[in-house]
Amino acid sequence: MRMVNTINPDQIIKNCDVGKNTKVWNFVNLYNCKIGSDCIVGSFVEIQGNVRIGNLVKIGSHTFICENVIIEDEVFIGHHVVFINDKYPRSTNKNGKLKNDKDWESLKTVIKKGASIGSNATLLAGITVGAGSIVGAGAVVAKNVPSNVIVAGNPAVILRYLSKVKK
Amino acid sequence: MRMVNTINPDQIIKNCDVGKNTKVWNFVNLYNCKIGSDCIVGSFVEIQGNVRIGNLVKIGSHTFICENVIIEDEVFIGHHVVFINDKYPRSTNKNGKLKNDKDWESLKTVIKKGASIGSNATLLAGITVGAGSIVGAGAVVAKNVPSNVIVAGNPAVILRYLSKVKK
Amino acid sequence: MRMVNTINPDQIIKNCDVGKNTKVWNFVNLYNCKIGSDCIVGSFVEIQGNVRIGNLVKIGSHTFICENVIIEDEVFIGHHVVFINDKYPRSTNKNGKLKNDKDWESLKTVIKKGASIGSNATLLAGITVGAGSIVGAGAVVAKNVPSNVIVAGNPAVILRYLSKVKK
Repeated sequence: MRMVNTINPDQIIKNCDVGKNTKVWNFVNLYNCKIGSDCIVGSFVEIQGNVRIGNLVKIGSHTFICENVIIEDEVFIGHHVVFINDKYPRSTNKNGKLKNDKDWESLKTVIKKGASIGSNATLLAGITVGAGSIVGAGAVVAKNVPSNVIVAGNPAVILRYLSKVKK
Repeated sequence: MRMVNTINPDQIIKNCDVGKNTKVWNFVNLYNCKIGSDCIVGSFVEIQGNVRIGNLVKIGSHTFICENVIIEDEVFIGHHVVFINDKYPRSTNKNGKLKNDKDWESLKTVIKKGASIGSNATLLAGITVGAGSIVGAGAVVAKNVPSNVIVAGNPAVILRYLSKVKK
Repeated sequence: MRMVNTINPDQIIKNCDVGKNTKVWNFVNLYNCKIGSDCIVGSFVEIQGNVRIGNLVKIGSHTFICENVIIEDEVFIGHHVVFINDKYPRSTNKNGKLKNDKDWESLKTVIKKGASIGSNATLLAGITVGAGSIVGAGAVVAKNVPSNVIVAGNPAVILRYLSKVKK
């Protein structure tokens, strides 16, 4: 592991723990997160603090990973994937001030080993996607996904069971 | 209010009227728009001309706000939200030339006070979202949303009525 | 045609063949692709290698165009549009190594002349969209679209037939 701080005009990585052989493309905004070894992070990606990403993970361009997301080893995250940690987002708190991190309960999302999240999928706050499962492109996932299934649609439903992780 | 012109390699703000205490992150492309006080604008956001944004507004990363959008005070706009002003988009006009702004009727979108637009939502041209309402993440909003409701789905439908704005 | 190589902090164009009068905005990542004349490419766009784009094409901000996409003349591509070439994406191959381009069958997507792809649409791997058709904003296109129709929804279905290309 190495602590990386790169503040280039076209790549901002602040206080991130990055494993060996991990490649991060240009136009990214990463801070206070942990990324394992042998990963790829595409362009136009933002990864917020308190995110932990395992080894051999691919993250496609334009994906946004919010605080409190755990991505296990060998997970595929497509392009334009959106994670969420706030169930009922609002701009302001009861005192009429702009909300900050302490003004909402941040729910944890977990993507289990070997799962794949299709491009443009949206994962609502607090979801777990089971090992080896595939979330179809454009799906809106509103509840937990068991292991080794394919889900798709808005809201996402199970389309098919996978006997084992397909390679 | 202050007129801001910042042409850095990692932040382009051209001819925008920006209120006090408003924070704009890196990797943005803002031009000819008006943003109120105490707002936050995330990374990878583009805001086009003739957009007016009120006070205490949060705009998440990767959001695109097209011309002719009005966002009132205390609105939450999630990540990857997409606004639209052209109902039947085409690349070229009747003369076979690339369309410019004068070649289509740009419809106005309004997000009323205290509403929240979930991440990855798509708002079709000419929509009004009522005060205090929540548009669910990943929703495709094809018609007006009344005040104080939750809508979701593709196309979005009303899921629930809110007795008052939830904080 | 001209071969363009621009490695600025805010615009990366590597080894692309770009036609005359084509305007490319800042914050883009283009490589090994071919773009015709009189086109516009918006900010925060990534276009991968082996992509061929015709003349008079508009590509909105935040769009991601993967390898093996062909876009014909006079096509409109909205904002946040996502193309896909891998039907069952996985992070790793059978040997437990990160997948590379040779580890999957990349399927070809074709957008025929004069078609329009609405913002935030997702096009699954191997799709053809017929000439003059409109894919509605937020649609998830899972099968071929014939010519001169409007499709929308997740999955997208035909909403309406167009007697001729609407301008």
